Amino acid sequence: MNPVLIEVLRGDAVESRHAGAVAIVDASGAVHTALGDVDRPVFPRSAVKLLQALPLVASGAADAFELTDAELALACASHSGEPEHVATAAGVLAKLGLDATALECGTQWPSREPVLRGMVARGEVAGPLHNNCSGKHSGFVCVACLMARNAGTDPAAFARGYVAAEHPVMREVSAALSAATGVDVERAPRGTDGCSIPTFALPLRSLALAFARAGTGLGLADANARAARRLREAVARAPFMVGGTDRFDTRVMQAFGEQLFCKIGAEGVYCAALPALGLGVALKIDDGAARAAEAAMAAVAQALLRVEHDVLAGYSHLVLRNWRGTAVGALRPAQALARALAAPA
Amino acid sequence: MNPVLIEVLRGDAVESRHAGAVAIVDASGAVHTALGDVDRPVFPRSAVKLLQALPLVASGAADAFELTDAELALACASHSGEPEHVATAAGVLAKLGLDATALECGTQWPSREPVLRGMVARGEVAGPLHNNCSGKHSGFVCVACLMARNAGTDPAAFARGYVAAEHPVMREVSAALSAATGVDVERAPRGTDGCSIPTFALPLRSLALAFARAGTGLGLADANARAARRLREAVARAPFMVGGTDRFDTRVMQAFGEQLFCKIGAEGVYCAALPALGLGVALKIDDGAARAAEAAMAAVAQALLRVEHDVLAGYSHLVLRNWRGTAVGALRPAQALARALAAPA
Repeated sequence: MNPVLIEVLRGDAVESRHAGAVAIVDASGAVHTALGDVDRPVFPRSAVKLLQALPLVASGAADAFELTDAELALACASHSGEPEHVATAAGVLAKLGLDATALECGTQWPSREPVLRGMVARGEVAGPLHNNCSGKHSGFVCVACLMARNAGTDPAAFARGYVAAEHPVMREVSAALSAATGVDVERAPRGTDGCSIPTFALPLRSLALAFARAGTGLGLADANARAARRLREAVARAPFMVGGTDRFDTRVMQAFGEQLFCKIGAEGVYCAALPALGLGVALKIDDGAARAAEAAMAAVAQALLRVEHDVLAGYSHLVLRNWRGTAVGALRPAQALARALAAPA
Repeated sequence: MNPVLIEVLRGDAVESRHAGAVAIVDASGAVHTALGDVDRPVFPRSAVKLLQALPLVASGAADAFELTDAELALACASHSGEPEHVATAAGVLAKLGLDATALECGTQWPSREPVLRGMVARGEVAGPLHNNCSGKHSGFVCVACLMARNAGTDPAAFARGYVAAEHPVMREVSAALSAATGVDVERAPRGTDGCSIPTFALPLRSLALAFARAGTGLGLADANARAARRLREAVARAPFMVGGTDRFDTRVMQAFGEQLFCKIGAEGVYCAALPALGLGVALKIDDGAARAAEAAMAAVAQALLRVEHDVLAGYSHLVLRNWRGTAVGALRPAQALARALAAPA
């Protein structure tokens, strides 16, 4: 069993507990912090979108289709389906001469409630562009279109089925993941992600290593090192694209810029890179709760950056309110996490 | 640490884990099953609404205001805010000569998504009647109105502030909880619930005892025993009221009638009574996840009722689908839970 990382208080009593594990390592793989079982494979889900976007830049597709910072940031995003996100994804596809029918991520309504309600009130319906992964998928289609152009075949036909593990695009994505993590993902436990692409279960230690590498370029081939840097810079310049209004990743990267790249994944995963410190972070809440993953990531960021910051404290000590707006409880880092982060590096 | 009760699979690999504890006892307090720490206090939240509704019947208020089965079932409900729920709560208040302004539960939009979208499309806004607790609160107001009538004072003025622990209505509710659980709740850790009334942290063992008593009448004062029976019968006759479309409690009680009374609470709590078996059940998922609470309750119900039933299996082995509708994983009872439930009573 992993230790409790985050406690949920109601009044003065602990109501719920979130166990999990945290790995913080440098680009050589040296462990800065390891709390819980950091060798057990976990599905990183959307937390590795930056790594999955490496081929978009490294292949030359981003240059070939003149992708902007906003478009590159959206390729690393789990966005809230706000109008800017939808328009940006549509813009990428338009550059390819394609439209939303090229996306194989499935339809998802915007996670941002006021946006969803506005659509409903106007009688609009959601499509694949509203899916939180539409930017990542638009990036995959870019890679497919460049491959098709190089092969002299029809781009739309070549792109079809790009979500399958054996498609040339997904092979590139898997290769980038293997190179960054140092784990042959073809041998890892495999599942299907929410957006229909494969997801591979990898140790937190290896995921943290990948983000230490992505933050520093150390241990990556030159093309991937340059790609990681360009993607991090793009997200730092267009942080709204990586999440959206009131989202953790957007708010934190608006506050900290290139000091901290962080990305949430489904089922309680978080990955982060702290380039100036040379560190990568990967954590998983055992039960999959996003509230605890955000609180733990905020606690880690505060400890590593040695800052007290309202945005981070607002997540690490999230105040819980009831239907009348009364504060009835709060999250807080549990003793095991607080101690591990307080220990000298 | 409590044992893992429910595992979440993605492909063939365990992606997430939900730990927790389960107490199953009879009305004498004899333990049928105890898995995990059943003596640690947990906030039962809405799982004890049947107990909180005992004064509504025992005081004579239900008779005085001629409450129907549907209205009594709604008093035990965490409903989805569907039109029938809203109309039924409004009907109770109308019998008192009052309206939604008497409710102190706060505003909540319907949890049932199509209902919410229909309201948004029609330009409607939510109010306290849509709050999942509006039936319980309407019941509290009934008790207040009977008290006011008996005291010869203005009902609306008397009812005001009924959510406070020291209000005469809430004192009755706390007394009913103490009597049923055998724990003096005034000495228990206290928090404020989502609907603004007090919630008291009590051991699962005591909560299970209360439901064994509520299912059998054994160990309760006559008035409370009769009240519990009437409430259980009302819910069995009007199970839609206790939850709503596609809700666990509604579907299970539609299928099993008076064989099984069950009620979910926030933060991963479930309580149940199996009158014919003389057993009460209380469980808590440590991390607060509803999906795991439902899966665990379904596994418990299958084991105790010795049935295989599609509705229960659909929760204990819930299939997880992605945005394209592809089955990507499933829940399942973990070994510790399966073993505890397989052991002879």
